[in-house]
Amino acid sequence: MQNVLVGIDLGGTKLAIGLITPDGKIIDKLYYYDHIDKNEDSIVMQMSQGVHTLFGRNDLDEKKNLMGIGVTFPGHLRHKEGICIITSNIKAGFRNYPLKAKLQEYFTAPVYVENDANAQAYAEYKYGAGKNTESIIFVTISTGIGAGIILDGKIYRGLTGTAGEIGHTIVDPDSSFQCTCGNYGCLMATACGRVLPKLYQLKLKEGKKSKIGITLENVMEKVDGKLLKNGFDEDDTISKEIIYTSAEIVGISLYNLSQILNIPTFVLGGGLMNWGEPYMHKIKEKFHTLAKDMAFDDTQILTSNLWEDAGIIGAAALYLEENRFNN
Amino acid sequence: MQNVLVGIDLGGTKLAIGLITPDGKIIDKLYYYDHIDKNEDSIVMQMSQGVHTLFGRNDLDEKKNLMGIGVTFPGHLRHKEGICIITSNIKAGFRNYPLKAKLQEYFTAPVYVENDANAQAYAEYKYGAGKNTESIIFVTISTGIGAGIILDGKIYRGLTGTAGEIGHTIVDPDSSFQCTCGNYGCLMATACGRVLPKLYQLKLKEGKKSKIGITLENVMEKVDGKLLKNGFDEDDTISKEIIYTSAEIVGISLYNLSQILNIPTFVLGGGLMNWGEPYMHKIKEKFHTLAKDMAFDDTQILTSNLWEDAGIIGAAALYLEENRFNN
Repeated sequence: MQNVLVGIDLGGTKLAIGLITPDGKIIDKLYYYDHIDKNEDSIVMQMSQGVHTLFGRNDLDEKKNLMGIGVTFPGHLRHKEGICIITSNIKAGFRNYPLKAKLQEYFTAPVYVENDANAQAYAEYKYGAGKNTESIIFVTISTGIGAGIILDGKIYRGLTGTAGEIGHTIVDPDSSFQCTCGNYGCLMATACGRVLPKLYQLKLKEGKKSKIGITLENVMEKVDGKLLKNGFDEDDTISKEIIYTSAEIVGISLYNLSQILNIPTFVLGGGLMNWGEPYMHKIKEKFHTLAKDMAFDDTQILTSNLWEDAGIIGAAALYLEENRFNN
Repeated sequence: MQNVLVGIDLGGTKLAIGLITPDGKIIDKLYYYDHIDKNEDSIVMQMSQGVHTLFGRNDLDEKKNLMGIGVTFPGHLRHKEGICIITSNIKAGFRNYPLKAKLQEYFTAPVYVENDANAQAYAEYKYGAGKNTESIIFVTISTGIGAGIILDGKIYRGLTGTAGEIGHTIVDPDSSFQCTCGNYGCLMATACGRVLPKLYQLKLKEGKKSKIGITLENVMEKVDGKLLKNGFDEDDTISKEIIYTSAEIVGISLYNLSQILNIPTFVLGGGLMNWGEPYMHKIKEKFHTLAKDMAFDDTQILTSNLWEDAGIIGAAALYLEENRFNN
């Protein structure tokens, strides 16, 4: 029987739990989709039950084989204390919730808590698209937008532990789009999954025609990333405009990050990356149009290659890494 | 006779050369203002002559007492090689100019080259407004805008050595103001010294009246930071609007940097800081309006306290620091 790590990825749609080897391979994993409506304590209990289930069905012994547990949190986190500050991605909110301490009550193996984008960034750096470089910024473009920053092989967290919250940076001060944070013109207010129905609605109100049956009556309920992908493939003008404009905004943000941090490698992940090559092409085009001869060394913009596994792999890998530094 | 360092601050207006003690005190300094029209080699010769002058008049011996020379460069730099990439602040351009090697020809003591904002940042971190914190971002708001990033006591330079070029980050994608880099809506295109005449001109064209005798005929030649300060004091509406709007744009940029890097301390320097309390107040107000409860730990926004000496002190201190790591 081998020693294993547990990686738990707490997302706004899915709660993923995996058994992970110390070198980043997934032994087994399971998903829950019904955690969204539970309160914080119940979600933590669901995490512990998931771990029990995985150990049971793989003939492993929690007491003997579990080295440690890494958990991601999709929001602001006091990293050192393992205390959530708040998330807008899960109903319960986790406001000032001591996630690390609460999950620790169920296990003797140590628990480690990390921001979700940081965990994904670390997985891509260690085992994924960024594995040949020492510094990367991983950007997840999904319901929301966030980033994890790896500098010289270590997560850069900042003072509180909230570095990389690029979704809240202002990209258009005159924008009429409001973010969940209350500000107008954040990256998240203009270019992420959450805002797609509003963007489509705006185009309809401007008098543009939908080729894919979207009307002012059904727009808020029907439009999401998948639908726009279909729209793009069916030559729906509105879908194309939204995808290209979103790409340009992301391109501007990557350019800004490049001027600030002069980073060789960006890795992009998250659901909207399913928009595929036209989206990625436009992001790169905008980046290079702005950077011109100011990109003095090559800057790579790559697609994630661990996808939805990045969270559980990264959480487990970070538990190990953190443990290495502490011992 | 004591051992000393030389700090040289190559600016777009002034070439400053100082004799600096190993603990950051200025023994003597001199300024040149006529370097602007010279070519690169002549400017380097002027640097060496300035050093000779300072050693002569302080009864010091270059061969015996000179520990090392730190030089700042006001533009993009390949840091490791000490090769300038380009600057838009000095006519000669310094395109691909090997500044370190060229100055080294005049001295046996080692020469060290650093970006100007990085050197100022390091001085403020080590001896100035940021001396009680381990991580700061120093922003210089002058003819142009740049930043130096100190993380955990070290300059963060990035891949090429050009990190901190926040002046080129896009703050308003729809702006009609073009930066020297060619892009529209950069921070530098909208809120630095270089753009003030254009901003005033725009207000005049909108039909606003100047209380301080500025007309469409004299605006491009007369308007600078000092004039706007007078305008502000004399209740000139246009001056006030420009100062407040510039402050808001800087406030947005600091907020964005805060979300990305979660830094406890900003130190602001450069000529436009002479706009004083109303300007600083508005910068802070905008920052906190955006940050709201997302500034989880206190963020300080401070005024530089080394001012124009930061460049020569920082260059000398960085020579020492770099040397410490190399030996």
